[in-house]
Amino acid sequence: MTPQLDQLFSFLRFPSISTDSRHAGDVRACAVWLLAKLEAMGLSADLHETARHPVVVARNVHAPGRRTVLVYGHYDVQPVDPLNLWTSDPFQPEIRDGRIWARGATDNKGQMFAHVLGVEQTLREHGELPVNLIFLFEGEEEIGSPNLAGFLIDQREILRCDVVAVSDTGMVAPGVPTLGYGLRGIICCEATLRGPKGDLHSGLFGGAVANPATAVARLVASLHTPDGRIAIDGFYDFVRPLEKWEREMWEKIPGVSDVDYLQVTGSPALFGEPGYATAERVWARPTAEVNGIGGGYQGEGSKTVLPAEAFVKLSFRLVPDQDPQDIMRLVTRHLETHCPPGVTIEVHSGHDGKPYLTDPNSPFGIAAQAALRAAFHAEPVLIREGGSVPIVQTFREILGADTLLLGLALADAQIHAPNENFPVENFEAGIRLNQELLRHLAIA
Amino acid sequence: MTPQLDQLFSFLRFPSISTDSRHAGDVRACAVWLLAKLEAMGLSADLHETARHPVVVARNVHAPGRRTVLVYGHYDVQPVDPLNLWTSDPFQPEIRDGRIWARGATDNKGQMFAHVLGVEQTLREHGELPVNLIFLFEGEEEIGSPNLAGFLIDQREILRCDVVAVSDTGMVAPGVPTLGYGLRGIICCEATLRGPKGDLHSGLFGGAVANPATAVARLVASLHTPDGRIAIDGFYDFVRPLEKWEREMWEKIPGVSDVDYLQVTGSPALFGEPGYATAERVWARPTAEVNGIGGGYQGEGSKTVLPAEAFVKLSFRLVPDQDPQDIMRLVTRHLETHCPPGVTIEVHSGHDGKPYLTDPNSPFGIAAQAALRAAFHAEPVLIREGGSVPIVQTFREILGADTLLLGLALADAQIHAPNENFPVENFEAGIRLNQELLRHLAIA
Repeated sequence: MTPQLDQLFSFLRFPSISTDSRHAGDVRACAVWLLAKLEAMGLSADLHETARHPVVVARNVHAPGRRTVLVYGHYDVQPVDPLNLWTSDPFQPEIRDGRIWARGATDNKGQMFAHVLGVEQTLREHGELPVNLIFLFEGEEEIGSPNLAGFLIDQREILRCDVVAVSDTGMVAPGVPTLGYGLRGIICCEATLRGPKGDLHSGLFGGAVANPATAVARLVASLHTPDGRIAIDGFYDFVRPLEKWEREMWEKIPGVSDVDYLQVTGSPALFGEPGYATAERVWARPTAEVNGIGGGYQGEGSKTVLPAEAFVKLSFRLVPDQDPQDIMRLVTRHLETHCPPGVTIEVHSGHDGKPYLTDPNSPFGIAAQAALRAAFHAEPVLIREGGSVPIVQTFREILGADTLLLGLALADAQIHAPNENFPVENFEAGIRLNQELLRHLAIA
Repeated sequence: MTPQLDQLFSFLRFPSISTDSRHAGDVRACAVWLLAKLEAMGLSADLHETARHPVVVARNVHAPGRRTVLVYGHYDVQPVDPLNLWTSDPFQPEIRDGRIWARGATDNKGQMFAHVLGVEQTLREHGELPVNLIFLFEGEEEIGSPNLAGFLIDQREILRCDVVAVSDTGMVAPGVPTLGYGLRGIICCEATLRGPKGDLHSGLFGGAVANPATAVARLVASLHTPDGRIAIDGFYDFVRPLEKWEREMWEKIPGVSDVDYLQVTGSPALFGEPGYATAERVWARPTAEVNGIGGGYQGEGSKTVLPAEAFVKLSFRLVPDQDPQDIMRLVTRHLETHCPPGVTIEVHSGHDGKPYLTDPNSPFGIAAQAALRAAFHAEPVLIREGGSVPIVQTFREILGADTLLLGLALADAQIHAPNENFPVENFEAGIRLNQELLRHLAIA
């Protein structure tokens, strides 16, 4: 075991589960440990209190005329239940089959700590960094970063930077360095449909009144055409078409073919909006998904009830240039006007995030590609991400800086699930990546 | 308190909850008490063991040449939870506002015990009954009468009868005697739709594969036309049209107007198959109801998951001359052929029961009407029931006898719910009804 792995293991042993207030002390202990590590490397580091879990910020001595690079990551982790599905203790990291197994191994401790160790290595080799560096590590990413935007606004001056680097996204395949230049946005909402004042006997009343569970199904069915397009009026109006060069480039990317998607998902078949390849649908086309639907009897066997109400939880992934608030208005109007007769509807909107797109061939993008090439000894691929990282849009809006998404996560990393893991080689490549990245950004 | 009410209260105090094995002793104790009561009245009574809860059978001395009348009822009751919603203890009956409040007050102890006390009264007044009587009281009705059909087959000879009387259905309104001459049948089934091998992140995979929760909604939506007809091929082929005299008769029945249905259900509007009045839809038209639907995240707030599977629990109320097995085949074929692409479907069929229809103006029907008229001092109405009482069809098939449905339950009796109740006047009318019924059937 290398000293670098040994330190990562110490970091991974903190059960820094941000959503669980019983672990608040562990989250703080993890932040304090990280602070000490950064200070020991010679950086100037501070722990900033928030309403819940602290933010750790560190910096080298900034010199005028150099690029300022902000590296963002998070030291908090997801819960670990169901614990019985883990092969080894989520907070006692182990190496098996060349992978590190622990909660947070990929998301995000392993990836962010590679950046920390990359900086340490450069300082050891050269005594200084080629750029003005800011490390920004938060402890609330897994609960939606409720205090980070406020922190960015408060600390806007000391966090001012030219570019942001984040390693919290995916690689398309093992050994294939991946630069993300786009993210989907998101809106979430829930609709509740109500009919009778209480559950009714489906024999004594079936036929008299509308069934809210039937109504919610009809409402959900109205969201798509049978072939998989979204049927909400105006939904596609501001969707920016895919560029020809993107489609040609993506065709050649390994790891995202139909065979790959079939294998990873285990679905009986692929399905989605006609006219687009699978990766195109995930990375650059909007979706409407049912995240949860429910109503009536949920137990074993049958109960002949006509339920009083039913609900559906929806989320929509958005792409440039869809605006979350505009789309939320269209969705709400659609749900209200398509609600079947005989029931009432109440729509609640939830959290949202804007889509993100940057130019992968900007000077910083070119530098990131060079760093990936050098770290992995392979040609990088340029992708968009299907997921949403709202903070990236916040960096652009508050700090005025674009973000390079240098993902090190594999498709089978089991993030947010039992048996999370991170290949040792990705951890080591991540350390090299940070060194190459700072070197290339310095001259971009 | 009359001696008759006092005895009913003793009967109601047994927590004879048939579905709960912890109450098996209470169910038996209730049967033993009932047996003793019937023997004390001078009837010959037996307790018959079944695989679970006993059947109690009692008879007078049968004489050749007299009508044989079987009165069926059940002494088991539904569970009582949520207990905190009861105003008084469900097994400590009380009289408030002219009603008896207790679990089983209406369903079915109150109604069946009125028949017992009617027989006692006639024996007291006349020393004998005008008919050959068989009392058949089971303890498993609330769990679907799993052992009753077998018992009927085994005891077919001793249970042979000309007609069956059951008081386990509803009155259209207080004080309006009601003869039921039809029941809907039922089939139940559950469909499970499966997509990915596990829940997926809706950002990383949304757009790649079909969402089983969306698919189940589309499948449910395919069951009806937008205006409320059932869209399953062949579903209405064997539906017997309503007779003109039925529609004219039902128009005049109190308690089943649209205003009544709106008030009782509390729904924002009535809804159902076009072309039929509300009571017609409930009593004489088939339905397709979602009893339960579920898939994905069920908790508070949002979770951006693309669920691995979703389910729907369906039941269909059937009318003459729909055959449950035929309809189950049509439903299964519809579900399988309308299942959206990208998911697999598995359909499990559950319990079923045939619809029932008899002539309310047969000699026995006329006798029942006369008895209702005499007991309530009011003109009886003739209805069908929206619910299903499968045992009625079983009586016809095994014993060869039609059933008179002499319901005493009010719409607000709260059967199967907290605060079940039964008007004292219905209990007393039930006692008179039994006396009048046996007298009129004897000469029908």
